[in-house]
Amino acid sequence: MLEGIYLAHPEVTHVGDDLRCFVRTNPVPGKVGLVTGGGSGHLPLFLGFVGENMLDGAGVGGVFQSPSSEQVLDVTRHVDQGAGVLYLYGNYSGDLMNFDMAGELADLEGIRTMTVLGRDDVASSVVGEEHKRRGVAGIFFAYKAAGAAAAAMKPLDEVARLAEKASARTRTIGVALSPCIVPEVGRPSFQIGADEMEIGMGIHGEPGITRKTLTPANEMVDEMMARILAEQSYETEKDVAVLINGLGATPLEELYVIYRRTAQVLDQAGARIRHVFIGEFATSMEMAGASISVLQLDDELQPLIAMGANTPFFKHIAQ
Amino acid sequence: MLEGIYLAHPEVTHVGDDLRCFVRTNPVPGKVGLVTGGGSGHLPLFLGFVGENMLDGAGVGGVFQSPSSEQVLDVTRHVDQGAGVLYLYGNYSGDLMNFDMAGELADLEGIRTMTVLGRDDVASSVVGEEHKRRGVAGIFFAYKAAGAAAAAMKPLDEVARLAEKASARTRTIGVALSPCIVPEVGRPSFQIGADEMEIGMGIHGEPGITRKTLTPANEMVDEMMARILAEQSYETEKDVAVLINGLGATPLEELYVIYRRTAQVLDQAGARIRHVFIGEFATSMEMAGASISVLQLDDELQPLIAMGANTPFFKHIAQ
Repeated sequence: MLEGIYLAHPEVTHVGDDLRCFVRTNPVPGKVGLVTGGGSGHLPLFLGFVGENMLDGAGVGGVFQSPSSEQVLDVTRHVDQGAGVLYLYGNYSGDLMNFDMAGELADLEGIRTMTVLGRDDVASSVVGEEHKRRGVAGIFFAYKAAGAAAAAMKPLDEVARLAEKASARTRTIGVALSPCIVPEVGRPSFQIGADEMEIGMGIHGEPGITRKTLTPANEMVDEMMARILAEQSYETEKDVAVLINGLGATPLEELYVIYRRTAQVLDQAGARIRHVFIGEFATSMEMAGASISVLQLDDELQPLIAMGANTPFFKHIAQ
Repeated sequence: MLEGIYLAHPEVTHVGDDLRCFVRTNPVPGKVGLVTGGGSGHLPLFLGFVGENMLDGAGVGGVFQSPSSEQVLDVTRHVDQGAGVLYLYGNYSGDLMNFDMAGELADLEGIRTMTVLGRDDVASSVVGEEHKRRGVAGIFFAYKAAGAAAAAMKPLDEVARLAEKASARTRTIGVALSPCIVPEVGRPSFQIGADEMEIGMGIHGEPGITRKTLTPANEMVDEMMARILAEQSYETEKDVAVLINGLGATPLEELYVIYRRTAQVLDQAGARIRHVFIGEFATSMEMAGASISVLQLDDELQPLIAMGANTPFFKHIAQ
């Protein structure tokens, strides 16, 4: 897979001989470096967002496995352009351990690092314990904000602050309709009936909130959006960005059916949709399902989300 | 679905009250109009390629059904900007009947139309009977060429000639691993074993060339590419554009595995890959599988494929 990506996209390359140390071919001198990483099997997440006005490097793990600290360190050394490096990845224990270790080793070499975590999945922990939440598709908004801030040559503390703000203001809720098969394992990651769905399931098949018989799309979206609306109010800040993400096997047609209802629900709640992203951003191999992410914008975040971006897997024309 | 698309993308709209008459919101005065159409269930095909430097309108049919001649005529009237309209769609009898009828009615109203068909699927008929072949993912290249030519304000005959050239020089071969379920029908479109694949299957489940036990990806690609190489020689014209298309449920990871081998095979055959497109361009709901399309470029087609484009479903930065 990685050989195919490097062949297709000369704007990305690897550090030394390790194909799993994924970086931009032409680093931007003096810019804060943005590094992410995580398991394979989630394309476009993670490496797919390495590119212009987005990220600078990614440690690529095996399917659903963390990259090693050595890989993250190699990527860190490569992307550091003298302005320090921000680690921006999902809140999973394996990733935390390896990124923290890489950060300590980088520090010994005089490379300053900071860390911001994606933890947008409302289904993975209750209000008050947001720090325990998993990072899922909504990390895209933190990538977008951090990427734009770094491209504007802001310093590391400021890039980290804006990434953290985007992350903290993003809420995601997912629904799964079928499992995926991790190639090395060879059997479905979990069992679910053909007429069932599970709201809140994680992108590695982590248990969700409720499993129930399939409902029509509108009813399903209403139930999902209730979880997000419980944590966001649009009274003083109306502007939002919405991401409707397909988990792998869900037709794009169905994502637009989901968006239609999501827009209605947000409109009724007093929100104003400023940016919409619909497609596959964070998948789980060939799992069927989708997630809805809502980022509550403010005057700082809005222009960062609007900025153009160009990666092999994500192209955004400035608005 | 259509309501969701119009809500998300204000740059496209519908003619009058019929949501299925899909057009650009801001037509370009004096430009040749490009109209496509076909059944739903194939997103981004067909309507997904309506936008800047691509198409101007699409008649949207039900799932796997042709749009009506009335819809095509309404779209034709709307997109005609005085320079005539090119119909560019896949070679299926229902579409042919309805587009031809719409063209005759448009003619009576003084709107000149021409027709170019996508018929890139090498599996659907033998050499010498190319006119019987079905249009599949490779029609994307004809859209791209025609869209760029029309954006350069070339006249109708010239746009049609270039679209026809792109179409005639494109070869596609697909492979299916699982069926899809048409919502109105409610059962899988065909049966195939979990350990089987069918090379040459059409995007509506039309029978392919061979059904066999799953092989490793490289072996599968070799067998698929042999069908394309039998009809293209790169001795005098080396430059090609490649499209690796996912049929719906196939992870992006696997498309890059397919691309890796495709690039190796093309390299060995003496071709030089100038443009690569990898992702979902023409799907079949949640069918698992993929297709490989190769367009043999010449000096006229190369810059048309390179030109930037911006539609809700396809963004291309000029190269």
